Amino acid sequence: MIQRLCVIGVGLIGGSLARALRQAGEVGEVIGSGRGEDNLRAAVRLGVIDRYDTDPIRAVAGADVVVVAVPLGAIEPVLRAIVPHLAPAAVVTDVGSAKGSVVADVERIYGHVPPHFVPGHPIAGTEQSGVEASFATLFQGRRVILTPLAETAAASHHLIRRMWELTGAEVVDMGVRHHDAVLAATSHLPHMLAYTLVDTLARLDDRAEIFRYAAGGFRDFSRIASSDPKMWHDICVANREQLLEMIALFSADLARLAEAIRADDRAAVLAMFQRAKRARDNLYLE
Amino acid sequence: MIQRLCVIGVGLIGGSLARALRQAGEVGEVIGSGRGEDNLRAAVRLGVIDRYDTDPIRAVAGADVVVVAVPLGAIEPVLRAIVPHLAPAAVVTDVGSAKGSVVADVERIYGHVPPHFVPGHPIAGTEQSGVEASFATLFQGRRVILTPLAETAAASHHLIRRMWELTGAEVVDMGVRHHDAVLAATSHLPHMLAYTLVDTLARLDDRAEIFRYAAGGFRDFSRIASSDPKMWHDICVANREQLLEMIALFSADLARLAEAIRADDRAAVLAMFQRAKRARDNLYLE
Repeated sequence: MIQRLCVIGVGLIGGSLARALRQAGEVGEVIGSGRGEDNLRAAVRLGVIDRYDTDPIRAVAGADVVVVAVPLGAIEPVLRAIVPHLAPAAVVTDVGSAKGSVVADVERIYGHVPPHFVPGHPIAGTEQSGVEASFATLFQGRRVILTPLAETAAASHHLIRRMWELTGAEVVDMGVRHHDAVLAATSHLPHMLAYTLVDTLARLDDRAEIFRYAAGGFRDFSRIASSDPKMWHDICVANREQLLEMIALFSADLARLAEAIRADDRAAVLAMFQRAKRARDNLYLE
Repeated sequence: MIQRLCVIGVGLIGGSLARALRQAGEVGEVIGSGRGEDNLRAAVRLGVIDRYDTDPIRAVAGADVVVVAVPLGAIEPVLRAIVPHLAPAAVVTDVGSAKGSVVADVERIYGHVPPHFVPGHPIAGTEQSGVEASFATLFQGRRVILTPLAETAAASHHLIRRMWELTGAEVVDMGVRHHDAVLAATSHLPHMLAYTLVDTLARLDDRAEIFRYAAGGFRDFSRIASSDPKMWHDICVANREQLLEMIALFSADLARLAEAIRADDRAAVLAMFQRAKRARDNLYLE
């Protein structure tokens, strides 16, 4: 399906995509690029890519699909560098966790959103990063959201959709703003809560003892605070408005719960827990 | 070790304790009590208890150990009922997730803390409840905190310690207030955050779609929002002050993070995430 795939940023996401497409027998050659040469060497050794070039300008030469799988904050400089060097028929996509900022980046570079650019976001990952953590089945049964614009060419859109389907993912289309709102609620806010919780506890006087007695719930709850800080820093910058809106909503609800506890309004406390349990149980049916 | 064990509240905790002691061959007869007769019948059928009496007054007759494994809010009425009917040498313990309120309950009933009462808290559990969810290995490798007081008899303390050790748990002693502070931080606060997060999202206009795209992190994070609402309502009432203090600390930290994001103070955001990741990774070394 793809003759020459260029993956810029051969980490957990980019590496897993390359592995999945190789395993599906749907890619000819895979060229990697990125800033960490050790990581690229490991990617060759692991058979994730065929070869690499640390210079993305040379890496994209002749590629029919270019996947920019770098942190959100690095997308603009990477795109700016490669744009003049893309093959005429190249289709470009990204994997950023926020899409409004990526579209704005693209508009700044091109003056418009070019038909060959398809913004994408695979909702998959672990707390690990780097090519060593990548695996071919990462996207199986997971959702990949594409946010094509009015300007996006149908052929480019379909090619990227097909590429992700080959990894076993379910691909859905969504508007850019809507994507960012949904992700602010379901992913970005929870990460802020996990980071804040761990940080709050880590700054208590008896933190050593507190962490010693942290129970199972805390372990699950705080796992996402092990995620890559730089990546999450970039997400905060990229999806600032919608994330702040969700933090404000959550904070108001938490303040309301605290007030009910303080006022000994037991009916309100119980009703809130019951509502949440019902919503959560309906969600996962476990 | 125990001739006759009486478990009042044969749910996940009480049932698992009975199962573990039976499996260890360290208990003669197990009598169950509680309000749900269906649950007690299931407990007999499952071999968790030998017999039951829905009246705790009759159930405690001749028992050398009485475990009060009911929700925090039910401990006082249960204790008040059984106190005149305990065998002279009976040792009584509880499994409540807050200890200050239990000690206050006991003081209200007796006018003091009697030497045969040993406040306890096994830090174990799942989101399930009821005897059907109980299993003998629930406490293996988990911690059980005992908060004996100056008035507690050494023999009673050692008996309850030994009982929990037989389940495979690691038993530690702690002051009452200190226990409640540690649990407010590591368990009660995270549960409030999980309940609030799910409730916040469940009240958004596009909640159906939002839950559809909830990613893996959210699943782990929100699992504890499936916990028993009544039990958590009781914990909020029982540990109100220390819980409110932790919510206030967390809220201030979350507001500080939001302010850093709003002000585009990228260094502060990154530093906070890095600090949290370091603390979390050091904690579990995974």
